[in-house]
Amino acid sequence: MKTVPLHVGFVGTGLIGKATLKQVGAHAPSLLATGGLDLRIAACADSKHMILASSADGMNPDAVDAAVGDRAVAEWDAGALAAETPVAADLDALVEKIVAHARATPDGAAVIVDNTSSDAVADRYGEWLAQGVHVVTPNKKANSGDLQRFRRFRAVADESGARWLYEGTIGAGLPVVSTLRTLRASGDRVRSVQGIFSGTMSFLFNTWDVGAGQPFSEVVLAAKKAGYTEPDPRDDLNGLDVARKVVIAARESGVDLALDDVDVQSLVPAELEDCDVAEYERRLPEFDGVIAEQAAAAAAEGKVLRFVGKVDAEKGTGSVELAKFDASHPFAGLQGADNILEISTARYSDEMSSTPLIIRGPGAGAQVTAGGVFGDLCKLGAVLGARVPV
Amino acid sequence: MKTVPLHVGFVGTGLIGKATLKQVGAHAPSLLATGGLDLRIAACADSKHMILASSADGMNPDAVDAAVGDRAVAEWDAGALAAETPVAADLDALVEKIVAHARATPDGAAVIVDNTSSDAVADRYGEWLAQGVHVVTPNKKANSGDLQRFRRFRAVADESGARWLYEGTIGAGLPVVSTLRTLRASGDRVRSVQGIFSGTMSFLFNTWDVGAGQPFSEVVLAAKKAGYTEPDPRDDLNGLDVARKVVIAARESGVDLALDDVDVQSLVPAELEDCDVAEYERRLPEFDGVIAEQAAAAAAEGKVLRFVGKVDAEKGTGSVELAKFDASHPFAGLQGADNILEISTARYSDEMSSTPLIIRGPGAGAQVTAGGVFGDLCKLGAVLGARVPV
Repeated sequence: MKTVPLHVGFVGTGLIGKATLKQVGAHAPSLLATGGLDLRIAACADSKHMILASSADGMNPDAVDAAVGDRAVAEWDAGALAAETPVAADLDALVEKIVAHARATPDGAAVIVDNTSSDAVADRYGEWLAQGVHVVTPNKKANSGDLQRFRRFRAVADESGARWLYEGTIGAGLPVVSTLRTLRASGDRVRSVQGIFSGTMSFLFNTWDVGAGQPFSEVVLAAKKAGYTEPDPRDDLNGLDVARKVVIAARESGVDLALDDVDVQSLVPAELEDCDVAEYERRLPEFDGVIAEQAAAAAAEGKVLRFVGKVDAEKGTGSVELAKFDASHPFAGLQGADNILEISTARYSDEMSSTPLIIRGPGAGAQVTAGGVFGDLCKLGAVLGARVPV
Repeated sequence: MKTVPLHVGFVGTGLIGKATLKQVGAHAPSLLATGGLDLRIAACADSKHMILASSADGMNPDAVDAAVGDRAVAEWDAGALAAETPVAADLDALVEKIVAHARATPDGAAVIVDNTSSDAVADRYGEWLAQGVHVVTPNKKANSGDLQRFRRFRAVADESGARWLYEGTIGAGLPVVSTLRTLRASGDRVRSVQGIFSGTMSFLFNTWDVGAGQPFSEVVLAAKKAGYTEPDPRDDLNGLDVARKVVIAARESGVDLALDDVDVQSLVPAELEDCDVAEYERRLPEFDGVIAEQAAAAAAEGKVLRFVGKVDAEKGTGSVELAKFDASHPFAGLQGADNILEISTARYSDEMSSTPLIIRGPGAGAQVTAGGVFGDLCKLGAVLGARVPV
């Protein structure tokens, strides 16, 4: 069996970064034994420190789990991992190191796993991809950010042959990006993608008891108390996070949208956009009437409200809106904080007497997001020639 | 960009076979231009005739669509496709030809696309895989059939490095096999898979109006009239088709079940198992009482009946049964003839405070099944080094 040495530089050691490192550390030996994919933990960095493997063999995966814990890189048990001790973080030096290890290894390849949410890190993808360093990331900044930069990175990757994989940027580990890519590669044409892409917004509308006359503000404040929202709930309710997902889904559907192109219906009242959080929360009940009316109007038609992102790939548009759905629609039956998305294509639509393709499940969480990142590493290994099941 | 010549031998020209040929014919030029995947239509066969490309360049994809039509291979416009004329079908000669074309082409590879439902064709996979010929198929016979044979084929493929891909064998083109494979490759552990794997059985229970006292036999006979069942509805209601899907899902979940291991609850009354179809249909109403009681008992608990296949990967068991689900369960809200399946893993379960991963959509239909087959061809191209998005 062919062995494919993949020298991995992990950047970012927050919840998702740590979960990814632990998953990879625990499973790398089995991937090597069964598929010939030799994932070598060549470097790890947080915003302050990094640790670089002194040998091209990488750090001992068995030791990674124990070393990582909940600590910053500076406090890792470096001795168990490699001969190096943590030094100040320096992405240039990190990439140089993993590339050197890859070049020193027959059939070696290098990949950066960006588990940060930093735009500064995302901004570097272009130069990395250009030198053949693959990029795997759940960081949405680049694939939902500036369109010209996105196109440049994509073109650079096409030119160098490096892969840029980001399943974790939409629906966490759910197979969204890979499904859209496979559909389009095989000649299908995406007509639309719509979904509930925010766990927070899913939770709010799934739990709001409209029939009992529960005020919407009560749902928002209870969700915040339970830890379901951002510290400032407006960061969820303004729809910008959903708009980013719409941009990602659009671009994977063949529609090169910019974030500004997305028509966003914010659920933050205009009067409360600029005040502080405390005032927002205090005054929120003043606006319960408007949304309650919308919900009542929907209920009168046997429908429910859901906060959805939509890509109309035929018109080339994207939107974020509060929309009505029949009680029998899959979006109406959603529970908890699940994400759901519905893909309509030439094949998956009434055009071919078919129904859409629907994917549902958790759209957030460190373990499933890390699983999406690790899944991308496995796919990268497969396209590099390792015998990883696809 | 690297070019990957893939010499494809298509076997089977029924609805799915024709749809696959047309999809590939229409989209091959674009795959070559954008991804370097050079799908060459090297051979096509039905049970009686075959046509072999005389040149390693394959047959003209533009001409395939026009040639295929609804006709048998013997009637294809062979002149437009290649210099050869149709000859008697001979799988040995066909495989020999595509292998010769692959060997004559730098970086060439060969793949058989088996669009039949023949066990005789499936029985040949082992020898093809052994000589490095990849196999892509929606034919369930081998991956749900004899366990020793399945294991032998899998071992042979692991040994030779050939890929055996069969996304189309469960849920048509829905991303089921690929999702299970990626989850497990990345170290997740499947706990259970349960689903409604039969479009027919989905339709029967989704449309049965239990509340109105509709007899179940009426639903079955109406479904047959509308073309939703096999000519003999017992072929759906005996649960054997679902049992095959359970075996496939189990094996992709790491549980090597044989068909006989699946505990199947048939919905065909024992008294009607051996009579002819006419008698079955005439006497079916005699048995309405039993299932109506079950449905009423479920309804009394606020539940509905669904005919499901289940894999318990922790116990290593599989079953097909009429089970009760809460009205809020995703299976209860299913519509039409959709398939649905729910995957629980270590990461996608309460073990990690998560919900399961759910995939829903059409589980049958020539276009979506052919799309699943074509998707596998794209993945094969990617792992062979073509720049196909994954």
